[in-house]
Amino acid sequence: MGDNYRGFSVTIEKLLEEKKYASLRDILTTINPADIALIFAEIQEEKLPLLFRLLPKELAAEAFVEMDEDMQEHLIRGFSDAELKAVVDELYVDDAVDIVEEMPANVVKRVLKQADPELRKMINEILKYPEDSAGSIMTTEYLSLRPQMTVEEAIKRIRRTCVDKETIYTCYVTDQNRTLIGMLSLKDLLVADDDDIVENIMETNVICVETHTDQEEVAQSLSKYNFMALPVVDKETRLVGIVTFDDAIDVIEEETTEDIEMMAAITPTDKPYLKTSVFEIWKKRIPWLLLLMISATFTTLIISSFESALAAQLVLTSFIPMIMGTGGNSGSQSSVTIIRGLSLDEIEFSDILRVIWKETRVAILCGLTLAVANFFKLILFEGVEVAISLTISLTLLITVLVAKVIGSSLPMLAKKIGFDPAVMASPLITTMVDALSLLVYFTTATALLNL
Amino acid sequence: MGDNYRGFSVTIEKLLEEKKYASLRDILTTINPADIALIFAEIQEEKLPLLFRLLPKELAAEAFVEMDEDMQEHLIRGFSDAELKAVVDELYVDDAVDIVEEMPANVVKRVLKQADPELRKMINEILKYPEDSAGSIMTTEYLSLRPQMTVEEAIKRIRRTCVDKETIYTCYVTDQNRTLIGMLSLKDLLVADDDDIVENIMETNVICVETHTDQEEVAQSLSKYNFMALPVVDKETRLVGIVTFDDAIDVIEEETTEDIEMMAAITPTDKPYLKTSVFEIWKKRIPWLLLLMISATFTTLIISSFESALAAQLVLTSFIPMIMGTGGNSGSQSSVTIIRGLSLDEIEFSDILRVIWKETRVAILCGLTLAVANFFKLILFEGVEVAISLTISLTLLITVLVAKVIGSSLPMLAKKIGFDPAVMASPLITTMVDALSLLVYFTTATALLNL
Repeated sequence: MGDNYRGFSVTIEKLLEEKKYASLRDILTTINPADIALIFAEIQEEKLPLLFRLLPKELAAEAFVEMDEDMQEHLIRGFSDAELKAVVDELYVDDAVDIVEEMPANVVKRVLKQADPELRKMINEILKYPEDSAGSIMTTEYLSLRPQMTVEEAIKRIRRTCVDKETIYTCYVTDQNRTLIGMLSLKDLLVADDDDIVENIMETNVICVETHTDQEEVAQSLSKYNFMALPVVDKETRLVGIVTFDDAIDVIEEETTEDIEMMAAITPTDKPYLKTSVFEIWKKRIPWLLLLMISATFTTLIISSFESALAAQLVLTSFIPMIMGTGGNSGSQSSVTIIRGLSLDEIEFSDILRVIWKETRVAILCGLTLAVANFFKLILFEGVEVAISLTISLTLLITVLVAKVIGSSLPMLAKKIGFDPAVMASPLITTMVDALSLLVYFTTATALLNL
Repeated sequence: MGDNYRGFSVTIEKLLEEKKYASLRDILTTINPADIALIFAEIQEEKLPLLFRLLPKELAAEAFVEMDEDMQEHLIRGFSDAELKAVVDELYVDDAVDIVEEMPANVVKRVLKQADPELRKMINEILKYPEDSAGSIMTTEYLSLRPQMTVEEAIKRIRRTCVDKETIYTCYVTDQNRTLIGMLSLKDLLVADDDDIVENIMETNVICVETHTDQEEVAQSLSKYNFMALPVVDKETRLVGIVTFDDAIDVIEEETTEDIEMMAAITPTDKPYLKTSVFEIWKKRIPWLLLLMISATFTTLIISSFESALAAQLVLTSFIPMIMGTGGNSGSQSSVTIIRGLSLDEIEFSDILRVIWKETRVAILCGLTLAVANFFKLILFEGVEVAISLTISLTLLITVLVAKVIGSSLPMLAKKIGFDPAVMASPLITTMVDALSLLVYFTTATALLNL
């Protein structure tokens, strides 16, 4: 979709130059807010405030939410107080919180000043919760019903108040203490008879999360139960907010990116790549590169200590990269599989013995295949001596076994002791597998070749 | 959540043994279908049919959908025709399709025989679409309205027909040829006046996908626009189905797992790890391990051809793993960042020059940091000669540069020529970076050390 709009932004800039504001407004109102944000990203910054003013109020706010923080900040700085208020008034509270969290203090102050007192109170409420908790991503604009209402009353209430609610399709039933006692979908209400009582048709076994639940767990629950929204309660099971499916999708994508980055030894970041400065990218990558470089000292030490053996059989050197590479690949196949299984809740710590047993058998199969293939390749095509070919093949078998067992068990142990499996596993596994495979290689060589 | 239910299954097995069916039914009806599927997975297979019969009809069908295919097959084989019909009658058409796709032919035949003719027709319709297309994951049970209806008529129609629809919260407006001409949300209907005409309040700029659109693109669109459902049209823009957000979440998780597996050189699979046999796992992993092992022949050849230089300065050998490791890590940092950016649509092929320029600067920063740190480490702590330390540091700088440029540009080129960036990038990058870093090392060494 993005690519299609590159051309569009040229048209828009042209119309803007020719001051054809009526046509511009007509065009913009046919475009979805998410696409407007994409188009705006292609247009020169100084033209944005004028263009933004052409958007109808509601569309303007919706498009604003979809923009990246730099553009939002630029626009806010250009807004008059009245313009800012018009945008802020249209925001859902969770979107307002996202904006406030990203902006510098002086901008935040202006935004909060324009927010009406109720919205300001809700924003401050949500800002109290720790980052990445259910509380921090929830919205407080949910629809609540009372147990004694009739279906007719409930539907009337929904029709009256729904403009301000982020979702009206799941309704929560609370008692006079705001305790969550049930839920029902708008669909349940619509199929029921007008004089049915909410209490009698509601689902009382409500799945909910606490304000401090980790956002990843919230998203996984939503995905597991196929819910449109999940209620968030405080310690006294009072309903304080809801998390909707669209926020859950964002969390899933964000957390997956984090996992992937950690597996590739990068400190995770929220910012899109093209928006991140060279220096910031360097800061995210260099600590791991340094750590891994320094931990490679082990491999240097191991090779040095076998220098005399290597001097006697210099050909052994040329197979070091192949052996270490195969070890690394085998290990990362296992660790990545297990890390993904853990984060999708398909694997739990209690499965550790099953996992290790399974990986052991897979490793033996893989190791044997590689060893046999390598043995014949060396003897038939490269004319390597039998004893040396045997040494290398035996090393491959043992290395694959070691790599797969370490690669599968370390992530699970990391999770057990409260570390993120992805962050802990990747550098540690690489270092251990590299060092161990060299040790295996030289020990086998010394034994088989009488060095 | 999963862990909590391990204890639960013991309780249930006990009640089953004691034949306390009434209590069992009471307990089961309070549990969410997704959790019932998890609990059933912990219970002995032969007890499942009896337990399943205790569930109320609707809950039984919902839990059935959540089960894995082995359990579904086991249950279907145990069902009488009447029992099978009861479950099939309650299924949404997209869930029925999922089940039919996974089962062996004789089971499929029984399922289709029990489905009523209309459902059977819809299932066969969807089965025609290619795997992983919008058509194959859509449901045909959507809600459509006519443009001339009043809001009152529309709401009445929704209340009358909504039991059979997968979602009633987004309504699509079609003309007499089933062409999609507009959409509106149930919320729009509820805030409108009873005698408003649908045509006048509907959104006419409808974002939709075609039946052949790739499922990953469908999921990305849904996530981008925060839609609850996306309409699927045929080539004549006739509405044929919808894809709902819960299916989109599944697609996102499935596609991400695929990306992650391919980056770790594993052939992707849909099956959860613990359900996959050792032999199947071996089949997914061994081709890549073999390919990578054989392509490591390059590194062996390069080392062999510099054997005399190495014999003169044996100490060079001991730094080979560190240099190759740093190259590999630098390359995978870049390739993984770019692959993720591509799959989240944050980066497009037209950005290739910006990306390479950014990676070049990051690489110079990273390379310089590593080279300087390494130089002082070697001289001060390990007593390595200055000339050799310089050789190694210079090699590091060039290797990091090469690795990051290759790591960032190959995935983009792969995407451009229609390959999956993840599958093409990972093994090729490893092989190229390994070989190139050795070449750089030995060339630098030969030049600087006069070998």
